[in-house]
Amino acid sequence: MTNGKATLLRNTFNRNGLIKIAGAHDGLSAKLAENAGFDAIWASGLGISAVQTVPDASILTMTEFLQAAVIMNESCNLPVIADCDSGYGNIHNVMHMVKKYEAAGIAGVCIEDKVYPKLNSFDDRQQVLVSTEEFCAKIRSAKIAQENEDFVVIARVEALIAKLGQDEAYSRAKSYVQSGADAILIHSKEKKPDEIIEFINNWDLDTPLVVVPTKYPSISMDQLEELGVKASIYANQALRATYQAIDNTFKSIINNKSSLPLEENISTVQDIFDIQNVQEMKEVERLIYNFNIQ
Amino acid sequence: MTNGKATLLRNTFNRNGLIKIAGAHDGLSAKLAENAGFDAIWASGLGISAVQTVPDASILTMTEFLQAAVIMNESCNLPVIADCDSGYGNIHNVMHMVKKYEAAGIAGVCIEDKVYPKLNSFDDRQQVLVSTEEFCAKIRSAKIAQENEDFVVIARVEALIAKLGQDEAYSRAKSYVQSGADAILIHSKEKKPDEIIEFINNWDLDTPLVVVPTKYPSISMDQLEELGVKASIYANQALRATYQAIDNTFKSIINNKSSLPLEENISTVQDIFDIQNVQEMKEVERLIYNFNIQ
Amino acid sequence: MTNGKATLLRNTFNRNGLIKIAGAHDGLSAKLAENAGFDAIWASGLGISAVQTVPDASILTMTEFLQAAVIMNESCNLPVIADCDSGYGNIHNVMHMVKKYEAAGIAGVCIEDKVYPKLNSFDDRQQVLVSTEEFCAKIRSAKIAQENEDFVVIARVEALIAKLGQDEAYSRAKSYVQSGADAILIHSKEKKPDEIIEFINNWDLDTPLVVVPTKYPSISMDQLEELGVKASIYANQALRATYQAIDNTFKSIINNKSSLPLEENISTVQDIFDIQNVQEMKEVERLIYNFNIQ
Amino acid sequence: MTNGKATLLRNTFNRNGLIKIAGAHDGLSAKLAENAGFDAIWASGLGISAVQTVPDASILTMTEFLQAAVIMNESCNLPVIADCDSGYGNIHNVMHMVKKYEAAGIAGVCIEDKVYPKLNSFDDRQQVLVSTEEFCAKIRSAKIAQENEDFVVIARVEALIAKLGQDEAYSRAKSYVQSGADAILIHSKEKKPDEIIEFINNWDLDTPLVVVPTKYPSISMDQLEELGVKASIYANQALRATYQAIDNTFKSIINNKSSLPLEENISTVQDIFDIQNVQEMKEVERLIYNFNIQ
Repeated sequence: MTNGKATLLRNTFNRNGLIKIAGAHDGLSAKLAENAGFDAIWASGLGISAVQTVPDASILTMTEFLQAAVIMNESCNLPVIADCDSGYGNIHNVMHMVKKYEAAGIAGVCIEDKVYPKLNSFDDRQQVLVSTEEFCAKIRSAKIAQENEDFVVIARVEALIAKLGQDEAYSRAKSYVQSGADAILIHSKEKKPDEIIEFINNWDLDTPLVVVPTKYPSISMDQLEELGVKASIYANQALRATYQAIDNTFKSIINNKSSLPLEENISTVQDIFDIQNVQEMKEVERLIYNFNIQ
Repeated sequence: MTNGKATLLRNTFNRNGLIKIAGAHDGLSAKLAENAGFDAIWASGLGISAVQTVPDASILTMTEFLQAAVIMNESCNLPVIADCDSGYGNIHNVMHMVKKYEAAGIAGVCIEDKVYPKLNSFDDRQQVLVSTEEFCAKIRSAKIAQENEDFVVIARVEALIAKLGQDEAYSRAKSYVQSGADAILIHSKEKKPDEIIEFINNWDLDTPLVVVPTKYPSISMDQLEELGVKASIYANQALRATYQAIDNTFKSIINNKSSLPLEENISTVQDIFDIQNVQEMKEVERLIYNFNIQ
Repeated sequence: MTNGKATLLRNTFNRNGLIKIAGAHDGLSAKLAENAGFDAIWASGLGISAVQTVPDASILTMTEFLQAAVIMNESCNLPVIADCDSGYGNIHNVMHMVKKYEAAGIAGVCIEDKVYPKLNSFDDRQQVLVSTEEFCAKIRSAKIAQENEDFVVIARVEALIAKLGQDEAYSRAKSYVQSGADAILIHSKEKKPDEIIEFINNWDLDTPLVVVPTKYPSISMDQLEELGVKASIYANQALRATYQAIDNTFKSIINNKSSLPLEENISTVQDIFDIQNVQEMKEVERLIYNFNIQ
Repeated sequence: MTNGKATLLRNTFNRNGLIKIAGAHDGLSAKLAENAGFDAIWASGLGISAVQTVPDASILTMTEFLQAAVIMNESCNLPVIADCDSGYGNIHNVMHMVKKYEAAGIAGVCIEDKVYPKLNSFDDRQQVLVSTEEFCAKIRSAKIAQENEDFVVIARVEALIAKLGQDEAYSRAKSYVQSGADAILIHSKEKKPDEIIEFINNWDLDTPLVVVPTKYPSISMDQLEELGVKASIYANQALRATYQAIDNTFKSIINNKSSLPLEENISTVQDIFDIQNVQEMKEVERLIYNFNIQ
C-alpha cells in the first residue's frame, strides 16, 4: 500500500525552507489552514480534547483521536501529522496505532516520551517521563510497524518541559534518532526562546528539528529557519481564536437579544456553503445527469 | 428509563418566556452557549456537516450526527435538541433514530418534512417535500418509539422554504400536531420577517412554535416573545464566527510569520484548560489520594 | 493513492477459474474464511445487521457498515467487497460512500438497484426498484468517485427478486455495464437454479457475473464455473452456523448447569489466542527488547 | 438520571440464588443468551477482541469496547456488565469510563487490579498487578463518578492468577470492598477448583463473590451456589463455539464445493429474520399506516 499523503509529507521535509504547520481540531480548521497557505496539519491532542471539553490527559481514546485526524485529512489536501501523545500504552499499542493511522491515510505521527496517561505539557503538575530505553523501544516498534517507507515518525522530547536540562534533552533526542525517529520535536514552555535556541544550537545531527512556539511566540519563522529548524507548529492559535469568537458571539446574542449587531463581523452562510463544497455538488449533478440525457 | 435532560427540556417548554436556543457544532460551542446564558442547544446539521466540510445534504450519517450531539450533551448541562434532518429514511429509520437518541440522553429531536436525502433550507436548488400523510406517519412513529414521555419531538415545516404558501404551511403544521408533534418549527428564508409573522399570527393551536431567524435577524427576542413564539434558535452564528476567526488567525500567522501579533486577541491557554475542566481534575486527585492517606 | 487490496481483487477477477467469496460479519469470520481457502470476503449487510439484531433494511448506517467492513479487512489478507445496499441515498451519497470505502482500504463495493431504505431480498414484502436511469446515474457516480482504477464496483440486479422477468433483468444489467459496472451480481430467490441459469445463458457481454446461491444451494461451484459464472458468494452460511452453535452452547450450559459437557465440541482458548495473533505479539517483544540489549 | 438496567442488575444481585451470566461478544450472542435463560450479559474483553482478531491486551480502545457493549445492551433486555480490563489508565480514565458507560445504559462495570496495558489472564507471560492502594483509588473513583446508585462496580482480583497466594488475594479483596466495590470477582486458572474453593471458604464478608469457571468447568452451578458464590460467568464458551462452527462451515463449503451438505445443520434464514425483529417491523407498518387510514 502506498499512502500519497505520507509521500507528500516526506517530500515537504526534503525540500528547502521552513515547514509551516497549523494545529487544527476539526475539518473546518484544517481546510482554512490549507487556504491560508500552511504546508501541513497538526492534529492537535489539545485541540481535539478541547472541542470535546475534556482535559488533554489521555482521556479521549486513540479511536477518538484517529477519527478526528481522519476528518481533518479528508477535509483538505495537506498531509496530516497526528499528535499521538505517549503512544496510548506500550510497544504493542504503538504498533497497533501506526497500523491504524497509516491505513487511514494519515501522513505521520508524533509520540512523546511521557508516561501514559499523559498530562498536557503546559499543565503545572509534575511531568513524568518514561526511560530512554523504553521510549527507544516504542520508536523502533513504530518504525517496524509502518508499511510505507514514507510514513513519518516524529519523536517528541519532553525533557525541557520536565526540567531535566539540556544534557538529558540532547541525550534522549540522539537516542531516539538512533532508534529510527525521522524528526525530533523539541518542546519548551519558557516564555523566552533562549532554552530552545540553546538546544537547536547544540544539535549536531542531520535529523530535522520541529518546534512549537506557543509559549515563546516572539520568535519568527525567519529566525527559526535561520537557526536551522525544519518545521514550526502553530498548534493551538486557531482553537484559542475559536473560543474567543464563539464566546463573543453568544454573549452578543444574549445581550442584544438578536444576532443583528454581529452579522457583519462573522462569515456568511455562503462562505460556509463554499467550504462545504456545495458548488462541487452542483457540478456533479450537471455532469452525471447531462451525460445521462445524451 | 428516565432521561433527565428530556425532563429539563420539557420543563423549559412549560415555563413562561422565550426559550433561547444556541446552535452548536461541537462540545466547546455547546459549553460556551451554556456559559453565555442560553437555555438549550441545537445540535445543528449544518454546523456538524460544516466542521467536517461536507454539504448539509444527508452526507453525514445518523451515526455521525448522533455522535456529535452526544459530545455536545456531555459537554454541558443544557438539554440538547438534535437537528435530525428528514429522519434518515422511512418510519423504521425514524423509530430507530428516536431509540438511539433517547438512549444516548438527548432531550429531543427535530425532523423536517423534506425527502431523504435532504438539502439545506438555504440552498437555492429545488426543495422537495414528502406528502403530509407520509410525514404524519413519521411523527407518529417517533412518538410511539420514545420510552420517556418527556422526550420532545419537534416537527419542522418546510412549506414556506419550498414556496408552497401559508395555507400549505398551516395545514401541514396542524396535521403534524394531530399526529403528536410536541412543537412546530416553522422555517423561512425571507430577508424580512413578514412571512414568518403572518404564519405566527395565523397560528391558533396551543402547540408551541419555534423559529430560526438566520435570514431575518432584524427581529428581536422581545418581538418574538410578544408574537407568542415559544423558542428561537440562533442556529449558525457560532459556526460563522468560528470560520471568520480561524480564517483571520491563520492568515495573520502566515502574513506576520509569527503568532505574536494576534496573541492578545485570542483566548489564553488557561481559558482552554478551564473549559476542559482541568481544575476539577486536580480536585479529584486531592480528594481521592487524601482520602487514601487517612 | 493506490489500494493494494483493490489491485488484489482486480487480479483475482482477471485470472481463470471461479472466485470463491465468503460472506462474513466480523473479523473472526473473515479470518476463518481466509484460513479455509476463500478468495475474497463479502461484508454482508444481512450479517452485519444480524449480529447487531436489527433488520437488514437500511437500519444500520453507512458508518456502521463501513466500520464492520474495515474490521474484516484488517483481520485478514483477503480483499473485501462491501455489500453497500442501495448506496445509502442518491448519487452524492454514492460518491461519498466510494470515497470513504476506498480510503479505508476496501477493495470494492456492490450496490443494488432497490430504493433506499431497502429490504432484504428474501423478505416477502414488496420489493421496489429505482428506475434504470437513476441506477445508471449511481453507477457512473461511483466510477467517477473512485481514485484507484482497480477499485471494483459491482452492480446488483434485483429484477428477478422483484419478479420483473428475464427481459427486465437483462436490460438493466446491460445498462449498468454501459454505465461502467465492473461486474453484475444477478440475484434470485428461487429454490431451483433454473431462473439464474436462464439469465446466465442469455448473458452475452464480457462483463463478469456474480451469483449468491443461498436459496438454490444445489448448484455446485463446478457447475457455476462451467456455466461461465465468475464468482460465487456464500453469503450467510457462517452467520447461520454461528446462530446454531451459540444457541446450542447457551442452552447446554443452562440445561447442564455447567459448560463441562460441551467443552470437547468447541474450540480451545488456545485456538482463540492463535487467531488473535498472540504468538506474533510475543515475537515482537523478543525482537524489540533483544535488539535493545545489543 | 436513572438507568433501568442498573436497577435490574442490582435487583438480580439482591434476590436469592446464583446469577447466571453469559459472556457475549456481539448483539446476536447477547440475544441468544437471553433466549436461553441467562440473567445477565458479560461484555467479554476477550470476546470483543477476538471477533476483531486482536489480542486481549488493551489493544482495542475503551471506545471500541463500549461500542460493543452498547450493541449487546440494545440487542436484549438483560443487564450488561462490561469487562473493563484495568480501567484504561489512571483514576481519571476510570471516572471518565464510568460516566460514559453509565450514560450509555450499561448496568455495571468490572475492573481488575492489573497494570495498563493488561494481558489476558490465561496468557502465560508474567502478570503484573498495580498496588493495592492504587487499585483502591480506582475503585473509589469509580464509585464517586457514578450518578445512579444502582450502577454496579465489580472489583476483579488477579492475585491468584499472578500466583501471589491466598493471603494476598484475600487482603486485596477486603481492601477493595472497603473502597466501595459492590462485588468481588475472584479469578483462577487452575484446572481444578480447589484454589477457588479455598478462597470462597475463607471469604467472611457480605460482599457477593463472582467466579469465571473457564479453566475449571467441572464445578457446577449447584456446587457454586452451595458454596455461597453469587454469580458465575460463562465467559467465552459462545465465542469458542462460534469459532468451531464457522471453521467447520467454511471448510465444508470449500471441500464440498457447495453449501448443500451443511444446510440442515445450520439455522435458517428465517431464524435470522426472527432474531432481527423483522416481524416487529411488519407490525409497526400495520399499526402506523392503518391508523393513518382511519
